Amino acid sequence: MSRLLESYVAGSWRTPTGEGDPLLDATTGEEVARVSSSGLDLASMVDHARTVGGPAVRELNFHERALLLKDVGTHLSGLKEELYELSTRTGATRRDSMVDIDGGFGTLFSFSSKARRELPYDTVVCDGELEQLGRSGSFVGQHVYTSRPGVAVQINAFNFPVWGMLEKLAPAFLAGLPTIVKPASQTAYLTELVVRRIIEAGILPEGSLQLLCGSAGTLLDHLGVQDSVAFTGSAHTAGILRQHPSIVHGGATLQVEADSLNCSALGPDVTPDQPEWDLFLKGVVTEMTVKAGQKCTAIRRVIVPDAVADQVVDDLAERLSRITVGNPADESVRMGALASLAQREEVRKAVEALRASCDVVHGHPTEVSPVDADAERGAFMSPVLLRARQGAVEPHDVEPFGPVSTVMSYSTVDEAVAMAARGRGSLVGSVVTHDPEVARSLVLGLAPWHGRILVLDRDDAAESTGHGSPLPMLVHGGPGRAGGGEELGGVRGVLHHMQRSAIQASPDMLTAITGRWTRGSARTTTPEHPFRHSLSTLRVGDTIVSESRVVSRADIEHFADFTGDTFYAHTDPDAAAANPLFGGIVAHGYLVVSLAAGLFVDPDPGPVLANFGVDNLRFLTPVRAGDSIAVTLTVKQVTPRASADYGEVRWDALVVNAEDEPVATYDVLTLVAKDA
Amino acid sequence: MSRLLESYVAGSWRTPTGEGDPLLDATTGEEVARVSSSGLDLASMVDHARTVGGPAVRELNFHERALLLKDVGTHLSGLKEELYELSTRTGATRRDSMVDIDGGFGTLFSFSSKARRELPYDTVVCDGELEQLGRSGSFVGQHVYTSRPGVAVQINAFNFPVWGMLEKLAPAFLAGLPTIVKPASQTAYLTELVVRRIIEAGILPEGSLQLLCGSAGTLLDHLGVQDSVAFTGSAHTAGILRQHPSIVHGGATLQVEADSLNCSALGPDVTPDQPEWDLFLKGVVTEMTVKAGQKCTAIRRVIVPDAVADQVVDDLAERLSRITVGNPADESVRMGALASLAQREEVRKAVEALRASCDVVHGHPTEVSPVDADAERGAFMSPVLLRARQGAVEPHDVEPFGPVSTVMSYSTVDEAVAMAARGRGSLVGSVVTHDPEVARSLVLGLAPWHGRILVLDRDDAAESTGHGSPLPMLVHGGPGRAGGGEELGGVRGVLHHMQRSAIQASPDMLTAITGRWTRGSARTTTPEHPFRHSLSTLRVGDTIVSESRVVSRADIEHFADFTGDTFYAHTDPDAAAANPLFGGIVAHGYLVVSLAAGLFVDPDPGPVLANFGVDNLRFLTPVRAGDSIAVTLTVKQVTPRASADYGEVRWDALVVNAEDEPVATYDVLTLVAKDA
Repeated sequence: MSRLLESYVAGSWRTPTGEGDPLLDATTGEEVARVSSSGLDLASMVDHARTVGGPAVRELNFHERALLLKDVGTHLSGLKEELYELSTRTGATRRDSMVDIDGGFGTLFSFSSKARRELPYDTVVCDGELEQLGRSGSFVGQHVYTSRPGVAVQINAFNFPVWGMLEKLAPAFLAGLPTIVKPASQTAYLTELVVRRIIEAGILPEGSLQLLCGSAGTLLDHLGVQDSVAFTGSAHTAGILRQHPSIVHGGATLQVEADSLNCSALGPDVTPDQPEWDLFLKGVVTEMTVKAGQKCTAIRRVIVPDAVADQVVDDLAERLSRITVGNPADESVRMGALASLAQREEVRKAVEALRASCDVVHGHPTEVSPVDADAERGAFMSPVLLRARQGAVEPHDVEPFGPVSTVMSYSTVDEAVAMAARGRGSLVGSVVTHDPEVARSLVLGLAPWHGRILVLDRDDAAESTGHGSPLPMLVHGGPGRAGGGEELGGVRGVLHHMQRSAIQASPDMLTAITGRWTRGSARTTTPEHPFRHSLSTLRVGDTIVSESRVVSRADIEHFADFTGDTFYAHTDPDAAAANPLFGGIVAHGYLVVSLAAGLFVDPDPGPVLANFGVDNLRFLTPVRAGDSIAVTLTVKQVTPRASADYGEVRWDALVVNAEDEPVATYDVLTLVAKDA
Repeated sequence: MSRLLESYVAGSWRTPTGEGDPLLDATTGEEVARVSSSGLDLASMVDHARTVGGPAVRELNFHERALLLKDVGTHLSGLKEELYELSTRTGATRRDSMVDIDGGFGTLFSFSSKARRELPYDTVVCDGELEQLGRSGSFVGQHVYTSRPGVAVQINAFNFPVWGMLEKLAPAFLAGLPTIVKPASQTAYLTELVVRRIIEAGILPEGSLQLLCGSAGTLLDHLGVQDSVAFTGSAHTAGILRQHPSIVHGGATLQVEADSLNCSALGPDVTPDQPEWDLFLKGVVTEMTVKAGQKCTAIRRVIVPDAVADQVVDDLAERLSRITVGNPADESVRMGALASLAQREEVRKAVEALRASCDVVHGHPTEVSPVDADAERGAFMSPVLLRARQGAVEPHDVEPFGPVSTVMSYSTVDEAVAMAARGRGSLVGSVVTHDPEVARSLVLGLAPWHGRILVLDRDDAAESTGHGSPLPMLVHGGPGRAGGGEELGGVRGVLHHMQRSAIQASPDMLTAITGRWTRGSARTTTPEHPFRHSLSTLRVGDTIVSESRVVSRADIEHFADFTGDTFYAHTDPDAAAANPLFGGIVAHGYLVVSLAAGLFVDPDPGPVLANFGVDNLRFLTPVRAGDSIAVTLTVKQVTPRASADYGEVRWDALVVNAEDEPVATYDVLTLVAKDA
C-alpha cells in the first residue's frame, strides 16, 4: 500500500487515521498515494492560523511579506525537477507541468514585485483621494484597506496542483492572512510536496501556511466574519458552498472561480488567407490539448461566421489529427492523460449529452491509441471536435472538462455576442480579428459576460500568452456560471482580501492613522533643511517653508524666450487679455514649478539623490506678472527600496501667492539615500 | 377605505387586485394607504427594464446620465414641501425628514457631480494602468468596466423611504442599469409619491425606473447573470435572499446592507472637562433619538473606559431626560413616533431580551407620555438607556431598532477593540479621542470590522456630519452582520454595478475598444498643429512630433541661475560625478519639461486655452549636457464639460533623446474651447 498523505496541521505534519482512498497514476493506474482527513483536528487549524499565523504575518509590512514570497519562489525554483517528475503522474506532459509549476513560481515573483512597487511600506493601504467633507478642511475622509484578523481557506481544483495553490497563497499572504490549503484529492500528492518544501525552508512564518489533504470535513463550520473561502471547482460544489451556514449567516466570505463554457470568436473579417485564420485555429487546438483540455479557461465553444464554418471544421480536424496522445513522459507525445479514469468517464458522459444537438466531426470519445501507454489503465482520450446543429442548446450548458470543443456559427456580430452570452458568464473569451470596429463591437458585447478577453491578431500574436493563461497582473474570474469571483489582477487580488473602510477625521488624526501625511495636518519645521536628512531620519510631516520671490514680467518674457514656449498667454498682452480664463499675461505653469524648485531645493550634495517625477500637478490660480510665490514642501510618504541603498520620498508641494491662495499643488518624487 | 398604492410597471401605473393591507399613520393610527402587489405582472417588469430601460440608459454616456440625475434632483427639490408633509405620517419630525428627503437629493447631486468629474465622457471606464505583457509592447493589458445588460432590483428598508431609493438609484443609473424599486411596505406611500413625481417629470428614459409596491413575490425568480439585487434590511431576510435559487445557481448578484450593532467608543484619554466628553455624549443622544433610533447606523453599543462609566451613564441619562417625545408635526417635539405599533413591539421585545444581562438605567420600554398625541394609537416610545452587566452577551447580539442603546465598559484599548468586534461586523463605528496614538490603535483595530469609522474630536467637530450619516462620497456597508456589502463611495458605488474585465490586445485594438489613446498605438499626424483644433474636431490619436533641440551645458547653467535651482547635479561637475544615479552633470527635470513645452506649443491664440496640470511625470533617462531632445504630443482623451464652452484634453507627452530613449513621459492637461 502506498503512503498516506500527511497534512500540516497547527505546526506539525499529521497522519490521518484509517487507510484513506487510493490516488492512481493517470497513465499507469498504479497507486501513487492514499488520501484522507479522518481524525485531523480541523478546529485547531483555524485556531492556529488565527492566533499564530495571522499575527505573525501582520507583524510584517507589505514589502517584507513580498520579499518572503520572492524567497519562496526562488527556493522552489531550485527544486523544480523533483516537482516535474511527480507532476508526470498526474498525466501532465512537460509542457503541461511548466504551466502549472513555472506558472506558479511566476505568480509568486509577479506578486512580490507588484506589491513592492504599488503598495506602501506599511500595513495600511490608502484608497483613492482625500475627500474634503466640510468647507474649511478640518473634517476629511479617506478610504483605507486594513488586514482582516481571519484565515483564508483555499479549496483548489485538481488540474493545477501547484499554480492553483500559489496563485491563491500569494495575494492572501500579502494581505496579511494565514492560509489553509485544501487541494483536490486527485492530485493532492503534488501539492503536498510543494507545501512540504515550503515548510522545510522555514521562510514563511509558522502558522501562515497549513495543508489539509482529503475532505474539508467540518472545516468551514469554524469560520466567521473575518474569514474567507476561495473555491475553484465545479458550479455544483459552488452552489453547495454558497448555502453553507458560515456563508449565509456566519459572515464568512466566499469567492468562487468555476469552470465555464469559454468561447473563442472569429471575426467576420477574417479569411483563410489572413494570418488571423491560423492564429485562431492554433488557439483552439492549443486550448483543447494543453492539460488534455482540463483547464477552467479552455475553449469549449468555437464561434465562427456561417460562411467559413465548414472550412474551420475541416482545418481544425486536420490539425487535431496531428496530435499524439500518450504517455506524458514520452517526448514525442503532445497530449497526456486525463487526471483519472473517473474524470475521463465524466468527459465521455458530457460528449454523449452534447450529441443531442451536436455531431462529432473529429475524434472519438471512447477510442484512442496512446503512444507508449496502456489504453485501458491510463485515462487517455482523443481530442473530440463537435459541430452544433441549428438551435443547439447543450453546448451552452454542458461542460466537457477534457479535450473537447464545439464549433457553432453566427450570421452577424450581434448574434455572435448573443451566442457567447448563452454560456451565462465565462472566465475568458477570445476574439480573433484584425478589424478595430469588429474588435470594439465584439469586446464591448462580450465584456459584461467575461472576466478576461483576449483580442488576437497579427500585431500581438508574437507576444500573446494565449487564450487559456491567466496572468498574475490581470484579473481571473468571471460572472455567473464562472462563479462571480475575481482573483489575481495584481494589487486588486490583495485588496480583495482586505476590508475597505471610510475613515472620517481631522487631517491630523488621518496622518496618525494612515502613516501618510494628509494635507491640512500639522507640519514639522526641522532645524535643518529636510534635504539634509537621510531616509532613516526623515519623518512624515518634516517641512521646509521657502522664502517668497516675485515673478516679474521680465521673468515670464525671459522664460518664453529661453524655452521657446511663447504661448500668447505669456507673451501677447492683448491676446492674453482676451483669454476667458486669464484676462492678461500669466506665468507659465512650468515657470512656476521651476521657480518653486529654486525656492525649496537645498543645493549641496546630501542624501537626496534625484527628483524622479511629479504627480498630480494642478495649476489652481494664475500667477500674474508681479505676483510673488512661496512654496511649502512636506514629507508625505517614505518608501525604502529593498534592492537599493536608497528609497523613495514623496513630498507634498504647495505653492501659494502673496494672498496665500494656492497657485499649484503637486507631489514631488525623490530618491533619498538610506543613510547619510 | 384609503387609496391602494399603485405600482409603475412596464410603462404604466397599475393597481393591484384585491384590497391590500392597510398602512397606518405612525402618530394617529389612521389609515394612510393600502398596499399589495397581487396581480401585477412581475416578469414584464424585468423584461421592460431589460429591453426598454437598459438600452435607453446605455445609449447615454456617464456625463449625460449624470446630468439627468441632477435634473431629477432639481425637480424634486421644488416639490419638497409635499414630501415633507407626507413624511410626517411615517412618524418623522421635520429634522428626521430632512435627513431622508434632503439627504436623498444631496446624494443625487453628489453622484451627478462626481460622475462628471471622475468618469470619462464615454460608456467604458479604464481601471488602473496599462500592463505591458511582453517585451516589445505589442501585447498589453488594460482592465475596463462595462455596463451589464441587466436590471438592478432594489429592496429598501422602511426607515428611509426617499434617501434609501435615491442612494441606490443614482449609482445604478450611472452604471447604465435600469432599476426596479421595491420599497418596504410600511412607508411605501412616500416612495410611491417620489417615484410618481420622477416619472411625471419625464426626465429619465422610460423603463429606467419602475416601482413595485407590496410584496416582491416572484420578482427574483426572473433574474439572471447580469442582474443584481441590492437589499437593505434585516439579517434574517438577507439570509433568505442569499439562498434564493437566482443567487445560488442563477448567477444574479446580491448586495446586502443589514442593520448592525454599531458602537461608539470613548478614548481612555478623554476626561469630563474636555470638549470630547460633550461631543461623545451628544453623539450618543443624537443617534438614539434621530428617526427615533430607527437607523441602520445608530449607536447601539456605547463603549467607555471603566473609570468613567458611571459618569457617562449619569450624563447620558440627564441629557435623555430632556428629549421630548410626541407628535412629529409639533415643533417642540424632538423625537417622533416609531414607524408602526408593530415596530414598537419589536423594540420592546428586544429590550426585554437585553435585560437578561443589562439593566435599564434611563427611560422605560412601555411607558411614555407623548406631547400632542395619543400614547395608545401612536407608536411612541421613550429613549431607553441600558447598562451591560459584566460579561453580557445580549448587547452584542440583539438589535433594538429604536431609541435604545447600551453602555458597556473596558479596561484597555485592546479590550475595547475586542468588545467592538463582538458585534461581528458593523456599518459604522465612532471613536472619540484627541490622542493620535489612541486614535490609531482604536481605528486600525476596528477597521476590519467596519465599513466606516468616524474619529471625533475638537478639531473636526464643527464640520463633522456625525456618526449616523452615510455620505455619498464614502462607502456605506460593512462586513459580517452588517451584510458584507458596499454601497455609495462615489464612483466606487457605480463600478460595483459594472463588470470588470481584463482586456489583452495590441495597443491599436485597445485604443479602438476603450476610446482612449493607448501608448504604443498609431498616431495621426494632422496637417495642422493639433492646437489649431477645437474640442469638436480634435480626435484621439492626433499628434504633433516636434523638432529636436540640444540641451547645452550653458542651458543647464543658465536655468540654474535663473530659477535658483542650483542643485549640485546641475552645477557641480565633481559632485555630480559622484552621484550614483547620474555620474555627471544632468539637466533639471523641470528644464526638460519646460523645453519640451517650447517644442510642442503652438503659440498663437486658438482653441487651446490653458494648461491646467500635469499627471504622472516620470524622468526615465538623465539628459546630459549636449544631448538633444524632441517631444511627441498625442491626444489621449477628450472630455467636454457640460457647464462650460470648453472641455479637457489629456495629451500623452513623450520626450526622447537622440538615441530615441524615453527621457520623460507624462500627461499634459489642457482646456480647449468646444468650437474654434
